Amino acid sequence: MSFYLFDLAGVAVFAVSGVLAARDRGLDLLGVIVVAAITAIGGGTLRDILLNRHPLFWITDTHYLTVIFVSAVLTFAYVRVRPPPEHAILVADAVGLGLFALLGARVAEAAQHSAVIVVLMGTITGVAGGFLRDVITAQVPLILRRDIYATAAIAGIILYLLLQSFGLQRSVAFWVGMVTVIAIRLLAIRWGLQLPIIRRSE
Amino acid sequence: MSFYLFDLAGVAVFAVSGVLAARDRGLDLLGVIVVAAITAIGGGTLRDILLNRHPLFWITDTHYLTVIFVSAVLTFAYVRVRPPPEHAILVADAVGLGLFALLGARVAEAAQHSAVIVVLMGTITGVAGGFLRDVITAQVPLILRRDIYATAAIAGIILYLLLQSFGLQRSVAFWVGMVTVIAIRLLAIRWGLQLPIIRRSE
Amino acid sequence: MSFYLFDLAGVAVFAVSGVLAARDRGLDLLGVIVVAAITAIGGGTLRDILLNRHPLFWITDTHYLTVIFVSAVLTFAYVRVRPPPEHAILVADAVGLGLFALLGARVAEAAQHSAVIVVLMGTITGVAGGFLRDVITAQVPLILRRDIYATAAIAGIILYLLLQSFGLQRSVAFWVGMVTVIAIRLLAIRWGLQLPIIRRSE
Repeated sequence: MSFYLFDLAGVAVFAVSGVLAARDRGLDLLGVIVVAAITAIGGGTLRDILLNRHPLFWITDTHYLTVIFVSAVLTFAYVRVRPPPEHAILVADAVGLGLFALLGARVAEAAQHSAVIVVLMGTITGVAGGFLRDVITAQVPLILRRDIYATAAIAGIILYLLLQSFGLQRSVAFWVGMVTVIAIRLLAIRWGLQLPIIRRSE
Repeated sequence: MSFYLFDLAGVAVFAVSGVLAARDRGLDLLGVIVVAAITAIGGGTLRDILLNRHPLFWITDTHYLTVIFVSAVLTFAYVRVRPPPEHAILVADAVGLGLFALLGARVAEAAQHSAVIVVLMGTITGVAGGFLRDVITAQVPLILRRDIYATAAIAGIILYLLLQSFGLQRSVAFWVGMVTVIAIRLLAIRWGLQLPIIRRSE
Repeated sequence: MSFYLFDLAGVAVFAVSGVLAARDRGLDLLGVIVVAAITAIGGGTLRDILLNRHPLFWITDTHYLTVIFVSAVLTFAYVRVRPPPEHAILVADAVGLGLFALLGARVAEAAQHSAVIVVLMGTITGVAGGFLRDVITAQVPLILRRDIYATAAIAGIILYLLLQSFGLQRSVAFWVGMVTVIAIRLLAIRWGLQLPIIRRSE
């Protein structure tokens, strides 16, 4: 199944983003691998625990852990030598977000959950890894401040469901949804888009 | 079943408290909704995962998510216009605590768990949402510092169990336990009650 | 089964370490007990949720909670009177780490998981309680900065598996693995050993 390779690619991308997020936090090599792993499989793991899907995917198929380990060590070595290309990382992260959001939505869809839960589980799959990464490194999660991140995932998954209900083939809807997530995310970065921010009334 | 409406009311109250806690953290609308949801259903979700009760209540009945969404958006809009009435919020939060603590205890009781686990699960249901809310907004959880919060839940649940063992009807014991939680919590706020605090010996 | 008593001893040691970690955070008695409990049973609970082992050990056998409660209250009382002996604590914590790592590995081994998962689950059992303790008290987890902690667990578990594959009896391999974890951990403290730390390239 071709999605499997995409899934592993998404894991690699998020592992890299976890390593980069761990810079400046004084972590050592093992700590960095831990953060990379939580970032890469945290979203899917949380989804599967909430949906009671066992055994967990990375327990039965250890390729996921292998990909994380190799990605994290290579990135660790790389950033000791030269600064990472921020631009490439943002694009890769957006691709990972789009891929995981749609893959997560498919999982909930296959388990016959309602549309609301499909959207929610897809979004959790896409964003929870980065969320956990920020919590364990003791930051207010970025996702809570830059909502066009999760918003992009939500929009793409809703489009995926709508297109199917209009009769479009599932695989086509999948690709359209995924590209939509990526495009919204990248445009939001480029234009600095934001949702309204909560603040005290004066 | 009339408890269902109370349950939804408790969810709404905690969603509001989540939004209010998210003020001053620079969150946007979606981040606020996420914090509201975690505050409102985090306790029940943690309880059900620990007790292996699946599917989770908010996955099969999406009214919970609807109530959270509406409560969060309305509160979000409100606090942009005027400051929230702190007093009303504290009372509402105490009511939510009492309700969730007793409802959570009943769930564990219905599953034939021992009295210790009934008390623990009721307390988790009542306080874990606020606990998670504080962790994800990177604060030392308030509950860890103001223990008359969890203590109130523990006292009310123990009373609920004792009254039943003395032959009182379950539904009456439920109400007495819940009112006890609320009363202890409100009196603790009013009188500034605290348990002893840990400190280094000099 | 003699491991049961060791298991309870490990729980007591980690409960004490949780109380000591909670000093200086302004927690009250109940908050301290909560931190002690999360430190003591958090690792085993996370392992069992990931492996879908239900009911959880501390739900069916409430001796765990009793041990935590008594350990936490006694430690709480003690540190109000005099400073804890740092040295004894580090040794006890290393013993707890070694014991939990090997006990956790045995659990995954008994469930027929692959060697990678056995190592991972043993490590999670040994270190996740302290990890959660640091997250809930809003610190960058120590484990993420001092990796010879988790590294010691990993090394001991790998040795345990290797010795068995060389034909050594399981119980002997268990003890050798556990002593290895403890020895590495204590030597790392004594000599200030560290893995390479991530840093930006200049």
